Amino acid sequence: MALSVEKTSSGREYKVKDLSQADFGRLEIELAEVEMPGLMACRAEFGPSQPFKGARISGSLHMTIQTAVLIETLTALGAEVRWCSCNIFSTQDHAAAAIARDSAAVFAWKGETLEEYWWGTERCLDWGVGGGPDLIVDDGGDATLLIHEGVKAEEEFEKTGKVPNPDSTDNAEFKIVLTIIRDGLKSDPSKYRKMKERLVGGSAGTTTGVKRLYQMQETGALLFPAINVNDSVTKSKFDNLYGCRHSLPDGLMRATDVMIAGKVAVVCGYGDVGKGCAAALKQAGARVIVTEIDPICALQALMEGLQVLTLEDVVSEADIFVTTTGNKDIIMVDHMRKMKNNAIVCNIGHFDNEIDMLGLETYPGVKRITIKPQTDRWVFPETNTGIIVLAEGRLMNLGCATGHPSFVMSCSFTNQVIAQLELWNEKSTGKYEKKVYVLPKHLDEKVAALHLGKLGARLTKLTKSQADYISVPVEGPYKPAHYRY
Amino acid sequence: MALSVEKTSSGREYKVKDLSQADFGRLEIELAEVEMPGLMACRAEFGPSQPFKGARISGSLHMTIQTAVLIETLTALGAEVRWCSCNIFSTQDHAAAAIARDSAAVFAWKGETLEEYWWGTERCLDWGVGGGPDLIVDDGGDATLLIHEGVKAEEEFEKTGKVPNPDSTDNAEFKIVLTIIRDGLKSDPSKYRKMKERLVGGSAGTTTGVKRLYQMQETGALLFPAINVNDSVTKSKFDNLYGCRHSLPDGLMRATDVMIAGKVAVVCGYGDVGKGCAAALKQAGARVIVTEIDPICALQALMEGLQVLTLEDVVSEADIFVTTTGNKDIIMVDHMRKMKNNAIVCNIGHFDNEIDMLGLETYPGVKRITIKPQTDRWVFPETNTGIIVLAEGRLMNLGCATGHPSFVMSCSFTNQVIAQLELWNEKSTGKYEKKVYVLPKHLDEKVAALHLGKLGARLTKLTKSQADYISVPVEGPYKPAHYRY
Amino acid sequence: MALSVEKTSSGREYKVKDLSQADFGRLEIELAEVEMPGLMACRAEFGPSQPFKGARISGSLHMTIQTAVLIETLTALGAEVRWCSCNIFSTQDHAAAAIARDSAAVFAWKGETLEEYWWGTERCLDWGVGGGPDLIVDDGGDATLLIHEGVKAEEEFEKTGKVPNPDSTDNAEFKIVLTIIRDGLKSDPSKYRKMKERLVGGSAGTTTGVKRLYQMQETGALLFPAINVNDSVTKSKFDNLYGCRHSLPDGLMRATDVMIAGKVAVVCGYGDVGKGCAAALKQAGARVIVTEIDPICALQALMEGLQVLTLEDVVSEADIFVTTTGNKDIIMVDHMRKMKNNAIVCNIGHFDNEIDMLGLETYPGVKRITIKPQTDRWVFPETNTGIIVLAEGRLMNLGCATGHPSFVMSCSFTNQVIAQLELWNEKSTGKYEKKVYVLPKHLDEKVAALHLGKLGARLTKLTKSQADYISVPVEGPYKPAHYRY
Amino acid sequence: MALSVEKTSSGREYKVKDLSQADFGRLEIELAEVEMPGLMACRAEFGPSQPFKGARISGSLHMTIQTAVLIETLTALGAEVRWCSCNIFSTQDHAAAAIARDSAAVFAWKGETLEEYWWGTERCLDWGVGGGPDLIVDDGGDATLLIHEGVKAEEEFEKTGKVPNPDSTDNAEFKIVLTIIRDGLKSDPSKYRKMKERLVGGSAGTTTGVKRLYQMQETGALLFPAINVNDSVTKSKFDNLYGCRHSLPDGLMRATDVMIAGKVAVVCGYGDVGKGCAAALKQAGARVIVTEIDPICALQALMEGLQVLTLEDVVSEADIFVTTTGNKDIIMVDHMRKMKNNAIVCNIGHFDNEIDMLGLETYPGVKRITIKPQTDRWVFPETNTGIIVLAEGRLMNLGCATGHPSFVMSCSFTNQVIAQLELWNEKSTGKYEKKVYVLPKHLDEKVAALHLGKLGARLTKLTKSQADYISVPVEGPYKPAHYRY
Repeated sequence: MALSVEKTSSGREYKVKDLSQADFGRLEIELAEVEMPGLMACRAEFGPSQPFKGARISGSLHMTIQTAVLIETLTALGAEVRWCSCNIFSTQDHAAAAIARDSAAVFAWKGETLEEYWWGTERCLDWGVGGGPDLIVDDGGDATLLIHEGVKAEEEFEKTGKVPNPDSTDNAEFKIVLTIIRDGLKSDPSKYRKMKERLVGGSAGTTTGVKRLYQMQETGALLFPAINVNDSVTKSKFDNLYGCRHSLPDGLMRATDVMIAGKVAVVCGYGDVGKGCAAALKQAGARVIVTEIDPICALQALMEGLQVLTLEDVVSEADIFVTTTGNKDIIMVDHMRKMKNNAIVCNIGHFDNEIDMLGLETYPGVKRITIKPQTDRWVFPETNTGIIVLAEGRLMNLGCATGHPSFVMSCSFTNQVIAQLELWNEKSTGKYEKKVYVLPKHLDEKVAALHLGKLGARLTKLTKSQADYISVPVEGPYKPAHYRY
Repeated sequence: MALSVEKTSSGREYKVKDLSQADFGRLEIELAEVEMPGLMACRAEFGPSQPFKGARISGSLHMTIQTAVLIETLTALGAEVRWCSCNIFSTQDHAAAAIARDSAAVFAWKGETLEEYWWGTERCLDWGVGGGPDLIVDDGGDATLLIHEGVKAEEEFEKTGKVPNPDSTDNAEFKIVLTIIRDGLKSDPSKYRKMKERLVGGSAGTTTGVKRLYQMQETGALLFPAINVNDSVTKSKFDNLYGCRHSLPDGLMRATDVMIAGKVAVVCGYGDVGKGCAAALKQAGARVIVTEIDPICALQALMEGLQVLTLEDVVSEADIFVTTTGNKDIIMVDHMRKMKNNAIVCNIGHFDNEIDMLGLETYPGVKRITIKPQTDRWVFPETNTGIIVLAEGRLMNLGCATGHPSFVMSCSFTNQVIAQLELWNEKSTGKYEKKVYVLPKHLDEKVAALHLGKLGARLTKLTKSQADYISVPVEGPYKPAHYRY
Repeated sequence: MALSVEKTSSGREYKVKDLSQADFGRLEIELAEVEMPGLMACRAEFGPSQPFKGARISGSLHMTIQTAVLIETLTALGAEVRWCSCNIFSTQDHAAAAIARDSAAVFAWKGETLEEYWWGTERCLDWGVGGGPDLIVDDGGDATLLIHEGVKAEEEFEKTGKVPNPDSTDNAEFKIVLTIIRDGLKSDPSKYRKMKERLVGGSAGTTTGVKRLYQMQETGALLFPAINVNDSVTKSKFDNLYGCRHSLPDGLMRATDVMIAGKVAVVCGYGDVGKGCAAALKQAGARVIVTEIDPICALQALMEGLQVLTLEDVVSEADIFVTTTGNKDIIMVDHMRKMKNNAIVCNIGHFDNEIDMLGLETYPGVKRITIKPQTDRWVFPETNTGIIVLAEGRLMNLGCATGHPSFVMSCSFTNQVIAQLELWNEKSTGKYEKKVYVLPKHLDEKVAALHLGKLGARLTKLTKSQADYISVPVEGPYKPAHYRY
Repeated sequence: MALSVEKTSSGREYKVKDLSQADFGRLEIELAEVEMPGLMACRAEFGPSQPFKGARISGSLHMTIQTAVLIETLTALGAEVRWCSCNIFSTQDHAAAAIARDSAAVFAWKGETLEEYWWGTERCLDWGVGGGPDLIVDDGGDATLLIHEGVKAEEEFEKTGKVPNPDSTDNAEFKIVLTIIRDGLKSDPSKYRKMKERLVGGSAGTTTGVKRLYQMQETGALLFPAINVNDSVTKSKFDNLYGCRHSLPDGLMRATDVMIAGKVAVVCGYGDVGKGCAAALKQAGARVIVTEIDPICALQALMEGLQVLTLEDVVSEADIFVTTTGNKDIIMVDHMRKMKNNAIVCNIGHFDNEIDMLGLETYPGVKRITIKPQTDRWVFPETNTGIIVLAEGRLMNLGCATGHPSFVMSCSFTNQVIAQLELWNEKSTGKYEKKVYVLPKHLDEKVAALHLGKLGARLTKLTKSQADYISVPVEGPYKPAHYRY
């Protein structure tokens, strides 16, 4: 696929797999709208006043049907939008097609190479004359990374004339980032600094993306205000937990059709994502074993009847392995060598380095048999037995299935919309410094409230006397900041 | 698609969607073999002695990957095999391709018309010169139906010269059956009677197929011995229950990507299939309501915390409706009209008449919008709201997903293999009359035992003294016939 | 406690712990009546016609509050009743007191010795002049045993003059039975034969009691017709399953207050009782391991995510052991020696010989520390660690808690009432021979139906056309005899 | 019971129900020690250095077997201890007896009047000469309340000569508090101020106790440093959640023996306690309906398949009502009037004002029938139907059963020990001001770690490189402060 930008008849740029899938995408977008009451309520509440009038928003977030409803909520509120995916396998091509045709500039397709991925990210941030976006929606933090690395390189270049050297890193992906920045420096040595100047702020929606932001805040490197949407209760305790409870078995079934009941499944990590995965596997009839570093999470697993062991303890007995840690080097090739024939190995944490794909790919004599896209059997020469790796170690729920369902994404994305609104509305007030913020609890509660009606729930109202008794306002927020839900 | 038979280079007949998918099919068959220990154990135990040498087996059973492993177990034991599907949507084309290329005559593809379906059934039974099959594997009973109707028509024709009149029935499908038989009468007025003569027996594997057999037994119409495989414990309490627990959410997710958590789901019928469906939906976080006619099953549902109401009570509040009854006229168009916008309606019972598709299709002004194959939105003119019907009311797990997973099908199909062996081995002994039989308990237990090792289980052995105490042999069978598990 | 019969002011015999608890018993009986809709419906339907007028009923069945409601249903239908418990620990003394005072002759108290137990059984069967009961309700089969052994001894005595020799058996309990019969022979050498003559029939309500009946039927030894109430669906699939799911954790908590979450629990046997126990433990957060001899039940356990191993595999790792097998010699002293300190060992099968209590009691140097009644810690001398044995190895749910709750017992006991009615009504018709029968399905369905209203359920009604389609009457029965639910 | 203090032979004061139960208490304490690894680890780690040497600790916390192990951990670390219960029904008399005889001054028995309760609290705080305790362990905050009210009254008295007027309040309990303080003023007008002077700090362990502390902190009224133990993860996410999941059904079963399966249960409040209760009821087979004021918690309930309605919506249909809110006026007498006959009403939140007991008791014509202690049936005159109220509206798990099991209390109480140690060790450093603190995360993780071995868990160790990647120390703490688990 040649990396050239295409244009719609109205002149909007895009690069998608197949624009003819737009009709199909539109049908599914319409179905999703019914399942995303939070976003639709935002359109109803804020649409008339067009609060994003004049705002340019760049988004780096899995280009799915649900994201399409998010994008069209942003445009319905007046924004101009450019978009790329934040994972090479997660794009739903019919969603990308519908958005490209109807609503926003999109640079994303399922099965990008890493080069194509970062090309798309760069396109997404490039608004031509006048610098970059006003706001960014950055799921895993790759857009933020590119801007920060770009600014760093430009400053270094200005000071010392040195350009980034892709050979300075072993990391295949970071090589590409450095290459892009190096090449950009030649044409415009202040591109990323202009971007930074314009940028009002960004919001990040995954544990991983947020972790990067806090690290930058700590070192003082953060170049703009950021809202940590991931740690809204209505995000992390819903999307991460219930979303994965839904999408893990979905991905397993679509990729392998394997019966989960009766199997031994190992879930590495028992955070919100791990809790959702373990619950799904247990409910489907698997015997679930958890690995954990944190004694508190380990004790939670035990209270749910799950065994807590190390990966080494069970590597040769289990049938299904899922990584959910947000850490790296969880399942190494040396583990994989010891697994049972046709053991399934997959990752539902944000990055693919939870599984040692490099070690696997470079294992002497290993043979890769692609059953179907995103489902590979890797056969080891010593035993002639194989393991099945999903989505090449990347997010299996997006690579092998369609990600999280609309309803739970509506919770997450309503947080994104509210965060973007907050940043934009306060752009001149100085309320937000170059730090990481979370949304105030009353907005978190509002997001939840917008999703109750669809499920037929009826809330109880506090009386004034009851509210006083527990020292909260009648309309909330109802809980102290440290409350854990 | 023109209905002409094709031939492999070796001369074997077939009609499939695309023979080039055979390699993909073969890869998935190889994966499935690892998950089907019962069938593989049959190959190991019986393969060497070739017990089916000389036997012709015709099968009418969903042409999936798992069925491919069944077919190749039958051929590994010496049989010659012809196959058709027993549902117009349930064929997996890559499975059909692999079998057609490598192992048996197949007439099946996903998305047949009813005419094509019955054409395939007829092809499957037609072994050319020398009559029909020696044995039939008949899941839902359609092959059995065709033979019985054929014989009846031939006898009537011989007696009175009258041929079947397709216009004598309102049932669209039965019209086709009568047409086929009528047309066949012209070329060979004793075809089905010759078939009957040769036929040693058949085995049936669904509640529906078995019900038909018992009805025919009762009226004395049954033309050959039949083994009711459905009521092996290792079939009905596994395939029906755990298979559907797996495949119902799989079908829902693939077809609609809808979040199950938080939804109100109605399961019509709480037999084995209904129990599996209700368990899956409850575990996924839905609130499940059951409809039942049988007070015992209703009380079971209540003991599991499920509400038992009538469809009328909940039709306008629920989000998901699943029929599992094996009965007809469960969800009528008048119900569907009252449902919420985008309520999902689907059937996982054997036949599509659980849902009033005819009523829906002929509803004045109704509009059908196909989201994707097997997922249709039907919009009612009065409300302009729609419902989503899966697989056109047919088996949604096979139409929208890939049916039951290999492991549980291994239980079911090992019963089929054992039943076929039993019929064939006893063909000359008179052991089996023109009645319906179930497999003896020790064979049922054997099927289970063949599946334990794969899951790492270790059985306890009775001592002689213990066995005497409970009056069973040390090696089983361990339970009286009436035991319910 | 001297074994002398006491009498109420009206002259009715009894022997209970403390008649002054009758008021408390009455209050709890009144609560239970609200929870036992099946029995109350029997009173409403049959009470006016007094069908048991003139019938003497002897019952050997745990003398609990629920049994009190059963007894008073029998008396409300016109019967005269005598009662004993069928377990030395299972009597609820306040229930016994209320019945003794108000309704029937009772010989039962919590904590009987074995001698007292069999004395009570004999009293229960002894109706004075005119022989024994017309009908017996015999849970575990001890009343039936006594009659059969009595008749055998009388016939032997008449033939040979030989009396039973208690020293001929090692079984402590059977020694007592033989002693009672021997002593009885002296005063009346045809007592049990007269009893047999009068007896119309009996009903049995546990797996164990029923097993004995079938063994006697097989050898032709059965002296009267018997109805197997245990295998009514509304008994075995409710009482055994849901009753134990309720009462196992109840007994564990009352006896030990131990936290179940996080523990490793071994359930020996995965029949209906084992399924209920395993479900309860799993839901409470334990990790459950099942032992099984039957591959089918083992495979069911695996499908629910439970590990299947042998007792030897896990004896030193588990925290809780429950026997549910109905067999003997399941947990031997040699197992108990290897258990962790304070491992809990208990039995919920009918008889105490599932646990090797004799081996434990006679283990050299073992020390018994009674924490509280029915909760003993046994300390082994080698390790100075101990295990906790509940209810001395007898039914822990009745010994340590109050048995099954009223609602599920209402299902079981309504079957008992209907069985007794059936035997009595058909006493002169010859319908029932000296065989074991189960209740017809329409009565089983009726029992279920009587319990739906209390739980707010609404049944769906078949149309005539639907009923014809599935070949059942509109009013049921709805399932074939072999259906497993 | 006359309120006079008794003394052991060694001169230690106490007031308990029956000292002869001390042996029984000791046996159960020894069992509990095996289940409380956190406390036993504290004894092993800190015992030798006697860190509490010279410290006086007063505790107001349910005087149960588990608390006995806590008390003896404090004394094993060198403290001198006085104790009272924090609920009139929660004392286990055998536990109190064992502690009174062996370890500490105890003033507590099951079934205190409110006067007796506050007398016990006063005794607990009264260390004779030299003022009060150095440290207090205050579960619900009553000891803290008494001190604060006492100081307030003394200051007012000194300033104005006015003494507290019990008639100034309608609250029956607060009347007693004022009376005690008023009477104390006469004998020593600076008693509570001396107490305050000496007091190093306190720790509180319930949502309710902590809420009071934060309110006092907010108004500046807090007289000493306090550690909020309730909000340790290893407390609120374990004790509140898993403890109640265990003890709610335990209390229901012991009090009523009612079958939970099939019932409709309403859980008011879906915080940690409500989540535990709802999980237990659902798993036991009830249909659970939640009432909530907080949209986030409501959405969590929906995701678990629970219906969210208002109490008014379901008051006449449900069988079981549980309050868990920590608020007041949840179930009013007007609700209770509308309930079904024998509906069960109980509270598992800290205070009894969740249920309108006053309204019930004073309802015209209402009749109270005590089934057994803590289980009352209240009959309304209009309908002659009744409801069953447990533990007079107080904590049903402690009133009707034995509270939370040892293992989970070990988590909570290890937090208490660590908090007390922290306050005592830092008493001269000024680290803790008159504010409310939570324990640092590494101590929280330590508490969890101390409980893993008992359950056979094996933690995974981070590599240095992994730790760096996620920016945490190899030894933890592993999560940011805002992490919700």
